[in-house]
Amino acid sequence: MQTLIKNVSIIPMDGDENVIEKGYIIVEDDTIKEVMSGEPPQGDFGQVIDGTDQVALPGFINTHTHAAMTLLRGYADDLPLKEWLETKIWPMEDKLTGDDIYWGTMLAIVEMIKSGTTTFMDMYFHMDRVAEAVNETGIRAVISRGMIGVGPENERAITESLELIEKWHQTAGGRIQYKWGPHAPYTCPPDYLRRVMELAKQTETGIHIHISETSGEIEDIKKQYGKSPVELLEETGLFSVPVVAAHCVHLSENDIQILKNNNVGVAHNPESNMKLASGIAPVPEMLTAGIAVGLGTDGTSSNNNLDMIQEMRSCALLHKVNTANPTVIPAYQALQMATCNGAEVLGLTKQTGRLTPGLKADIILMNLNQAHMTPCYDLVANLVYASQASDVETVIVDGRILMQNRQLKTINEPEVIAQCRAIASRLTGV
Amino acid sequence: MQTLIKNVSIIPMDGDENVIEKGYIIVEDDTIKEVMSGEPPQGDFGQVIDGTDQVALPGFINTHTHAAMTLLRGYADDLPLKEWLETKIWPMEDKLTGDDIYWGTMLAIVEMIKSGTTTFMDMYFHMDRVAEAVNETGIRAVISRGMIGVGPENERAITESLELIEKWHQTAGGRIQYKWGPHAPYTCPPDYLRRVMELAKQTETGIHIHISETSGEIEDIKKQYGKSPVELLEETGLFSVPVVAAHCVHLSENDIQILKNNNVGVAHNPESNMKLASGIAPVPEMLTAGIAVGLGTDGTSSNNNLDMIQEMRSCALLHKVNTANPTVIPAYQALQMATCNGAEVLGLTKQTGRLTPGLKADIILMNLNQAHMTPCYDLVANLVYASQASDVETVIVDGRILMQNRQLKTINEPEVIAQCRAIASRLTGV
Repeated sequence: MQTLIKNVSIIPMDGDENVIEKGYIIVEDDTIKEVMSGEPPQGDFGQVIDGTDQVALPGFINTHTHAAMTLLRGYADDLPLKEWLETKIWPMEDKLTGDDIYWGTMLAIVEMIKSGTTTFMDMYFHMDRVAEAVNETGIRAVISRGMIGVGPENERAITESLELIEKWHQTAGGRIQYKWGPHAPYTCPPDYLRRVMELAKQTETGIHIHISETSGEIEDIKKQYGKSPVELLEETGLFSVPVVAAHCVHLSENDIQILKNNNVGVAHNPESNMKLASGIAPVPEMLTAGIAVGLGTDGTSSNNNLDMIQEMRSCALLHKVNTANPTVIPAYQALQMATCNGAEVLGLTKQTGRLTPGLKADIILMNLNQAHMTPCYDLVANLVYASQASDVETVIVDGRILMQNRQLKTINEPEVIAQCRAIASRLTGV
Repeated sequence: MQTLIKNVSIIPMDGDENVIEKGYIIVEDDTIKEVMSGEPPQGDFGQVIDGTDQVALPGFINTHTHAAMTLLRGYADDLPLKEWLETKIWPMEDKLTGDDIYWGTMLAIVEMIKSGTTTFMDMYFHMDRVAEAVNETGIRAVISRGMIGVGPENERAITESLELIEKWHQTAGGRIQYKWGPHAPYTCPPDYLRRVMELAKQTETGIHIHISETSGEIEDIKKQYGKSPVELLEETGLFSVPVVAAHCVHLSENDIQILKNNNVGVAHNPESNMKLASGIAPVPEMLTAGIAVGLGTDGTSSNNNLDMIQEMRSCALLHKVNTANPTVIPAYQALQMATCNGAEVLGLTKQTGRLTPGLKADIILMNLNQAHMTPCYDLVANLVYASQASDVETVIVDGRILMQNRQLKTINEPEVIAQCRAIASRLTGV
């Protein structure tokens, strides 16, 4: 079937700062067939979406989250990291069942679709249930079962990862992909990481790992191995497969060079790093070095939302003030980080991240006819600095409409909210 | 007339971290009569608002903005401050007529009401037209005519300020107040500031001024006067009247002590300071010293929105990462800054900022029945870290409903948007 989106402003993210003022997008089945301006296209369209007063852009790509942690949103805030993890987050996570993870992920997907995210990269546990939620709802995801390389769970983590790859990798028409999820260099020793790397090679997947999130991690790894986490991981050979490195807050110049030389993609999580006071990642330096840097929200227990528009905005603002330079990360670059750069980080440039013929139709439409988007001298600046999640009207993933006029098409939203409230009551015994 | 808001969660901001889970608010004419939990009140209510699944809190107080600058939203971004001001903002401001200011302020008021702001403090020009917009729409404001103390305008600024006080101060049932608006110590020499201070004393008003926004300002004042801007202003006697000091980004320990000793209220503008790369104000230090610090958005040309929820969130996150301490500015404190502390900064604690019997009824209701607000372990954390402007459903100022179910009651929103688009076209000649 062919769908026509007509009379719409378009930001295709096609490599320059091109904005089409009044254009047309033709979608055939799951694929973008044409993006054009000028005369309206003729043809027999099974479905026509009027984009008057709206802008079409690629859906946002959240390159690092723990979706089911929506269940812990607001459960513990404003605490020192160690106390937060040890007395609050971990004891709660111990109580989570597979059903909880399913509903928590559904809640996250509702929030993500309603704020324009069409792809997310997830690391958590019970990932079979996460895949189920992704499969059912129609969103796109790269999933990773978190692996701790020390202790009794390390072998089970490998077995389960292999089962997940067998069952889910490249399924749902390519919407679900798998990457191995060794948690971090301080929880996975080099021998374990080497095994995971070999398995990632054999399964032709990749790796999703937390690197250099806190200064404590740097100190501990330096003490134990005499080098930085990035240096250690290079030495283990981890970067010989595609790697998504979440955080990368504390990096030396040498670390940045290593990441660049090995084509490591970085998931930058400005709001989580701010809220947990982890530090400020050297994003301008990474971008200058030519590293692919995407944006991620991290889990909602350290954010506390999954809103990629806010993440773009926080990214642009934070690095300006941190470098005392207002020209750093201009609006278009922030939008690149949230879309096409995110696709590069996840290895999905042939699927998503741009509105280009041949790519999958992952498209969002946002309402421009609003006071807070008026006037419109610069559509991209308005999007990054002034738009709101609730401006997202329509969300299309893989050619399928998941939300239209803010109504979800594949999810029973009240049921998801009710289920998650019941789980929260059970977890806290109230 | 009496209005009852029933079955509503309430965050009264009444001095402790009190949250009423299911409560009732009775409003009589323009005043809060009762805030209660327990049995539903009996009585003859002219109007009943059902607050099920909503939270009531004091409307937000934006302690520093230039409302009509909505007309310049997105006109110039990501530029060095000097280039931004001299080649973009000032030439455009020269073109603004009284009518433009009226419509730009109307646009700002639409955005403010729709994001839960019930009071704003404004400094701009053509303030007669700003007052007109405030008067018509029903919002609360403290207005200041910006004054430059050098050049041909300095006398006219004084005459006009006196006229504005005569015409508007304490009008609209107290909704409109006036403070004198000498722009900054680097644009107003000490002699001029002393005259303004004397006039502020005579007119029993106060002063609204930019202080220590950029490091360049500190250097220039130091070079010229041998002291910091705060020290200079103390010496001129400016602080002998109530002063609202916007920005205060670059302060010494002595400056902080001076502000405290003189009961100066500070309007902290985290997003504007980030976007213009001005620096990070020492807010935790100011709060520890006992200074009243409120939040402001500044004008939309350096933000680019008037959303106080985002400002709260940015404030809490920025100072955590800046101090490497995640316990700094916890959620409740951020909410205080956006409400009751803001009232203190503006000298309006007897009017607004809390839901307390006897104060004016400036109340907002926000919708909690949403995925991004689920679950709800901690209502205040959810509000500060996860809520969105579009969650604001109902806005009451001075006992009058300005928005209900997101419909504005006193403003023709499409007309305001259309007028501002036309002005933007004229300004840019397209």
